[in-house]
Amino acid sequence: MSLIIIGTVAFDAIETPFGKTDKIVGGAATYASLAASYFYDKVKIVGVVGDDFQKSDIDTFNEHGIDTEGLQIKDGEKSFFWSGKYHNDMNSRDTLVTELNVLADFDPIIPESYQDCEFLMLGNLTPIVQQTVINRLDKKPKLIVLDTMNFWMDIMMPDLLETIKMVDVLTINDAEARQLSGEYSLVKAAEKILQMGPEYLIIKKGEHGALLFHEDKIFSAPALPLAEVFDPTGAGDTFAGGFIGYMAKVGTVNFNNMKNAIIFGSALASFCVEKFGTEKILNLTQEEVAARVQEFVSLSSFTIEV
Amino acid sequence: MSLIIIGTVAFDAIETPFGKTDKIVGGAATYASLAASYFYDKVKIVGVVGDDFQKSDIDTFNEHGIDTEGLQIKDGEKSFFWSGKYHNDMNSRDTLVTELNVLADFDPIIPESYQDCEFLMLGNLTPIVQQTVINRLDKKPKLIVLDTMNFWMDIMMPDLLETIKMVDVLTINDAEARQLSGEYSLVKAAEKILQMGPEYLIIKKGEHGALLFHEDKIFSAPALPLAEVFDPTGAGDTFAGGFIGYMAKVGTVNFNNMKNAIIFGSALASFCVEKFGTEKILNLTQEEVAARVQEFVSLSSFTIEV
Repeated sequence: MSLIIIGTVAFDAIETPFGKTDKIVGGAATYASLAASYFYDKVKIVGVVGDDFQKSDIDTFNEHGIDTEGLQIKDGEKSFFWSGKYHNDMNSRDTLVTELNVLADFDPIIPESYQDCEFLMLGNLTPIVQQTVINRLDKKPKLIVLDTMNFWMDIMMPDLLETIKMVDVLTINDAEARQLSGEYSLVKAAEKILQMGPEYLIIKKGEHGALLFHEDKIFSAPALPLAEVFDPTGAGDTFAGGFIGYMAKVGTVNFNNMKNAIIFGSALASFCVEKFGTEKILNLTQEEVAARVQEFVSLSSFTIEV
Repeated sequence: MSLIIIGTVAFDAIETPFGKTDKIVGGAATYASLAASYFYDKVKIVGVVGDDFQKSDIDTFNEHGIDTEGLQIKDGEKSFFWSGKYHNDMNSRDTLVTELNVLADFDPIIPESYQDCEFLMLGNLTPIVQQTVINRLDKKPKLIVLDTMNFWMDIMMPDLLETIKMVDVLTINDAEARQLSGEYSLVKAAEKILQMGPEYLIIKKGEHGALLFHEDKIFSAPALPLAEVFDPTGAGDTFAGGFIGYMAKVGTVNFNNMKNAIIFGSALASFCVEKFGTEKILNLTQEEVAARVQEFVSLSSFTIEV
C-alpha cells in the first residue's frame, strides 16, 4: 500500500514584498510529498528533473521517507524553472519566467514497486500526463485526487474533462470552479462539477478557507487568519499533499474523514506560507502540527443548543 | 431593560439580475430591528421618516413587537430614499439615487421609556448622530454595537474615531477594516482597531463569513453557501440586528455568547438575501430559524482527536 504523488519537481525563483530567493527547489510534487510525509510513511514521487538537480535535493526527499524511484533524472537537460513576483496584497502575482525544459516531453514512469498504490495525488500538470499515470497503474487506486488550474481549462478543456471523469476528488479554486461550470454561485457550480465525474469537490478559497462538496452535503473549513503571509508559493500543493497524506493514514474514504483531512491540509498550508518556498515545511515536528490543528479547532468551534 | 436600535428607516428601490422593485420599506434600523425581534421582545427603534411613510408600515414594526415611540414622523417632509442596481455577481452595486430628505437634519430623540436601554445598536449613520444617541442615554448600556462604513472613513474620520472609542463592538467589512487600520493583514488590522477602543471587532466577509476578534482570540464563522442570492440589500444590517438581538436575549456579554450571536445573525442574514428587501425576514417561524442555525452547525463542525 502506498501513496503516489505526481507533479512538477522544479526550481523556483520567488520575489515577495519581504525579499527574494535564488533558485530554490519547488514544484507541486515537492510541496505535496513533503506535506504528506507528516502523516504517511509510504509516499512515492513520480516526476522528472534535469541533471542540475543536486543529489542533496533528492536526499531531502529520502530523509522524509519519500521514495524517489519514480523521479526520472535526465542527463544533459535542465529542470523545470519558474520565476514569479508577488504583488503587495500577496493575492496576485506575475510570472516572470517559465522554462519547461525536461517537462516539455515528460513521460511518467511508474516503477514496479509503485504498483501497490492505493492513494494517488495528481498534482497540477497537463491533463494528458495525469491520465497516463492513471492508465499505467495495474489496479485502480482507492482514492484519486486531481489538482488542476485555469490554464488547462483555457487550452485543453476536452482533455481536462476526460481526466476529471476518472477521479474521485477534484481540487480547484473558486474562480476555477466558476470557469469550469459556467456558474457564479459556488453551490450551483459544485452541482454541475459533481455531475462531471468526481464524487467530491474541494473549492479552495485561500485566506477564506475551503469548501468540500459531496452529494448534498457541504463542509466549510476556515483558514487560519495570519499576521503575515511571507510567501504563498506552494500553499495549494501543500494543502493537497496534507489532505491526501491524512486520507492515506486513516485509510477509509468518507465525508467525515475528508473534513478532517481538509483541516490537516489547511494546517500544513498555514505553515508553508510562513517562510520562503519549502523552508518551513521541511522541519516541522508532530507537536507543532498537532498544536496548529488545535488552533483550527479553537478558531471554528462553537456550541449552540438549538 | 431593552434593546435600542438606531438607524435609517427608508424607502429603497432595488434592481437585481432577478428583477426590480418599486419603493419598498428599507433602511438599517428596519432590517436590524426585524432581525432582532426574532430573539428579543423589547426592541425599540430610534429613527426619522417623512409623512410619506404609511401607518401600515409602522404597524408592521409593532406587529413584530418593535416599539416605535422613538421613530419621529416629520410632517410635510419625505423619507430617506435610496435606489441601487446590483451587478451580475451581486457583490458590487451602483447607487442610482440618494435623497437624504428627513435624514439631512436628523436629531435623534430618546423617549423617556427608552432609558431602560441595556443593549444599543448604532446602525450605519453619521458618527455625530451615533455619538449623540450614546450621550442622550442616562446610563451607559451594557453593550454598544457600532456599524459604520467606508463613506464615513472618507469624509469624517476624526468624528468616526471618537465614536469608535465609545463602543464595545465594531462591525465593518474586510475592506473597511483595512482602510481604518492601514493594514492589509486582517490580524494586524484587528490588533490596531482593538486599540482604538472597542473590546470586540467583527469583520464581515459576505459570502466568506465573518471573523470575531477579542483580546488574542479569533472566531471564524462560516457563511452558508447559497444557490441563489436574490437581493443582498440589508444583509449586513440583518446580521447586526440578529447578533445584538441574540446578545440581548442571553444577557451576558462574553466571547462564547458572541460566537453564537454571530451564527444567529448569519442565519438571519442568509434568509434576508433570499427575497427582495425585508420580504423574507418579515415572516419567519422560530422553527425555520432553528433549522437554519442547525445548517450552520452541520456546515462547520468536525471532530478531530489530536
